[in-house]
Amino acid sequence: MELDWLLAPPLPDSLPRQRVLYLRLRDAILSGRLMPGTLLPASRSLAASLNIARNTVLFAYEQLSAEGCLISDRQGTRVASLPAMPMPPAAAGPAVAAGLQLSARALAACQSGPPGEIAALPFAPGTPDYAAFPFRTWRACLERAWRDAGWRQLGYAAHGGDPALRAALAAHLTTVRGLAVEPTQIVITSGTQAALDLCARLLADHGEIAWAENPGYLAARVALGLAGLRVHHVPVDAEGMAAGEDDWRDHPPRLIMVTPSHQYPTGRVLPLSRRLALIERARQAGAWIIEDDYDSEFRRAGPAPPALFGLQPDAPVVYIGTFSKTLYPGLRLGYLVLPHAIAADFARASVQAARLGQGIEQRALADFIERGHYTTHLRRMRARYAARQAALRAALKAEFGSDVALSGGEAGLHLAMWLPDTCSDQRVAQAAAVLGLGVRALSSYTRPPMRCNGLVLGYGNLAEGMLDEAVLRLGVAVRTATAPPPDTR
Amino acid sequence: MELDWLLAPPLPDSLPRQRVLYLRLRDAILSGRLMPGTLLPASRSLAASLNIARNTVLFAYEQLSAEGCLISDRQGTRVASLPAMPMPPAAAGPAVAAGLQLSARALAACQSGPPGEIAALPFAPGTPDYAAFPFRTWRACLERAWRDAGWRQLGYAAHGGDPALRAALAAHLTTVRGLAVEPTQIVITSGTQAALDLCARLLADHGEIAWAENPGYLAARVALGLAGLRVHHVPVDAEGMAAGEDDWRDHPPRLIMVTPSHQYPTGRVLPLSRRLALIERARQAGAWIIEDDYDSEFRRAGPAPPALFGLQPDAPVVYIGTFSKTLYPGLRLGYLVLPHAIAADFARASVQAARLGQGIEQRALADFIERGHYTTHLRRMRARYAARQAALRAALKAEFGSDVALSGGEAGLHLAMWLPDTCSDQRVAQAAAVLGLGVRALSSYTRPPMRCNGLVLGYGNLAEGMLDEAVLRLGVAVRTATAPPPDTR
Repeated sequence: MELDWLLAPPLPDSLPRQRVLYLRLRDAILSGRLMPGTLLPASRSLAASLNIARNTVLFAYEQLSAEGCLISDRQGTRVASLPAMPMPPAAAGPAVAAGLQLSARALAACQSGPPGEIAALPFAPGTPDYAAFPFRTWRACLERAWRDAGWRQLGYAAHGGDPALRAALAAHLTTVRGLAVEPTQIVITSGTQAALDLCARLLADHGEIAWAENPGYLAARVALGLAGLRVHHVPVDAEGMAAGEDDWRDHPPRLIMVTPSHQYPTGRVLPLSRRLALIERARQAGAWIIEDDYDSEFRRAGPAPPALFGLQPDAPVVYIGTFSKTLYPGLRLGYLVLPHAIAADFARASVQAARLGQGIEQRALADFIERGHYTTHLRRMRARYAARQAALRAALKAEFGSDVALSGGEAGLHLAMWLPDTCSDQRVAQAAAVLGLGVRALSSYTRPPMRCNGLVLGYGNLAEGMLDEAVLRLGVAVRTATAPPPDTR
Repeated sequence: MELDWLLAPPLPDSLPRQRVLYLRLRDAILSGRLMPGTLLPASRSLAASLNIARNTVLFAYEQLSAEGCLISDRQGTRVASLPAMPMPPAAAGPAVAAGLQLSARALAACQSGPPGEIAALPFAPGTPDYAAFPFRTWRACLERAWRDAGWRQLGYAAHGGDPALRAALAAHLTTVRGLAVEPTQIVITSGTQAALDLCARLLADHGEIAWAENPGYLAARVALGLAGLRVHHVPVDAEGMAAGEDDWRDHPPRLIMVTPSHQYPTGRVLPLSRRLALIERARQAGAWIIEDDYDSEFRRAGPAPPALFGLQPDAPVVYIGTFSKTLYPGLRLGYLVLPHAIAADFARASVQAARLGQGIEQRALADFIERGHYTTHLRRMRARYAARQAALRAALKAEFGSDVALSGGEAGLHLAMWLPDTCSDQRVAQAAAVLGLGVRALSSYTRPPMRCNGLVLGYGNLAEGMLDEAVLRLGVAVRTATAPPPDTR
């Protein structure tokens, strides 16, 4: 039998000879070039004919025998009978894709998410000022964490997260946010999306109804949809989520996702009376409120309204916070604050549902908070973002007139700019994208019958030097979108 | 009206006076101490009576008005009518828990997970040798990543993960694992659990059947259960997953979770013929195979058998790999390798389903791989773990006799030690826990009608100096569990 081709050039540089022999023999067997039952040469004879060490052949034969490709007995080594293998199609095409596809339902759920990547373009929402991040201080905390790292920091995290971080965070939330919480009520997560995921999967069952704000945070809808919950869209008015009697009667919720501190994307702030009413109704309905308190750290108009979580000791409220905007998104650390009644169960279940690690980063963050760096950084950023918002408002008024309709200035890192009906926000967003801006259309966060026409203008990462040019381009985008389409006849 | 108590001691040090005034007024309103309709003193007069600046009072009034607690008009400032508030129960108890609970179904799914935290006790499975981790080299890579960090590394990750890491990993997998993959086929995840989660949610629909190995990896069952899939347990024999005709006929799968390189926990290696047959049957059944190729890096007996993923170009196989055991679990980085047909869709959907970040760590890992440190580390650890396994085998034979039944030595970081029927593995595990060992009972990974009686002995983090003592204690635990229960008459 002629087997020279087994080691014929080209031979890959990166693989040892015996690996090449093994791979080529295997391919020949799998492709049918060597038929079942074929008797192979004895190892000594094949080694001689290929001019290689006998051990190299023995190795390949043994490996292939172990895998069931070859059978060795007293008569020698034969190609085994393998299951019939259909020939792969000639090229990638529709045939390839047959059966190779994602769940249509999952794809649909994901398509309710934001359209593209979150880049650092001017006006892109949800991006903090990367340049202002205290690299040196943070890295010093990381250094210390690495210096003391043991298996606890390198392994999986303890239930609920690093104990030092839970303690530091509880103290911080008590002082700064007025939440009287104990460390055992805190579960560290790898960010808001992971926290939403845990809530959607641990607090509700497939097929139950979850409320999302309309317009609202797209990533929350994805988490709800992927958990198999039926998403009901509740309208937002000038004060935030505004559920009507028909919502409570016709779509009784199991989960209620709400962003009371700074409704996303409109920036509305839910007043206290509404907060109390929401808790009361949720209690009656047997529903959990998921309070995403994002942006409460960057409050401008006096202290933030009290969190839903702190309002009543036994309210069915789970609180979500994140470090993505106060530090940086790539850190991937956030947290849940839970009522005593479920805290221990939730912490245990969350370990099973989402293995947490990042022990070094958790320890560094605890250090960063304990040393007061976090409070200092928040204070500094609050001033910086306030100045940035003021500058943006002035520039927008200069560009679009002093009656330009803005909302959402009480907190956070973005403004909503409302547009007249004559100017489609989608067209503005498209034109703005061409001009290098990360503007989002309010309508893309909105489901019918609600209608919103406006822009989400993130200013977190909009440096003062870029601001005027960015607003100038926005003006161009708005005028482009407002102009009647060119006559194409 | 007497309002001196509003600023009566004790005043918290950490809060400014106006915040205390605001909080106490709010509490008084919410608790009913100040009734709806109550007219409050004018700001000037309250300021005078409390001996504070008028602005402090104005600030509190404004904030409470904004929140709907107070109403100001020409007649003055009154307490608003708020929704009726039930009194919280006197103490935490069953009443508190009413309505405040996790989904029973989610709890049940999570209870199929491993019982406790994964600690670094001797014999604990899944823990690498933390002491052998190349801290200095790794931290140098992190340093470089921090030095060059831009918004890309601090923000959310690009679709599919850091491009440099995807490229480095594709090259590594091609050379080392024989997978001819392109960077676009790789999706970085925050570890195996996140990868399993994505597969369970993106590749199947609620209510569909997913196969898990029996005995099998508990965390995979959690991911399947939480995604609402019906888990069917397929028996494992001496060669790994062994589905019978009745499994295919009566429980047609949509997903098949399999650990072919080193079946968890038995350590069996799926032979090539079974791999081919599995692909063929999965194709016929329209099922996805999820190949968890953990431990393939620590292969001892010749090269690893070919991955299911690489066996046929268009096989319905998704490949999962992780750095948890090759580097450290807390890093929380793993990856999926996907067929071309779904790679782009999957990468896009995964961004929505699980926001990825860790840009610094991803970039550092790409650097670590590109510079050859990863291959060097794997080679070093392969030798170290092989020596450790040999020492463990010798010690076990010395302690339990040379006919002690061990399996799973071909790869990985653990051995399965089978016990005679007279000795319950659960009792051994309990006794071992008392003696400070992290031994797991094989039966805890097993569902009826399968029966397994044995121990999972992780040796990844079992330093040579601890080995003899650990085996000695294991001997005590086995003898304790084997002895007839003491006569209690």
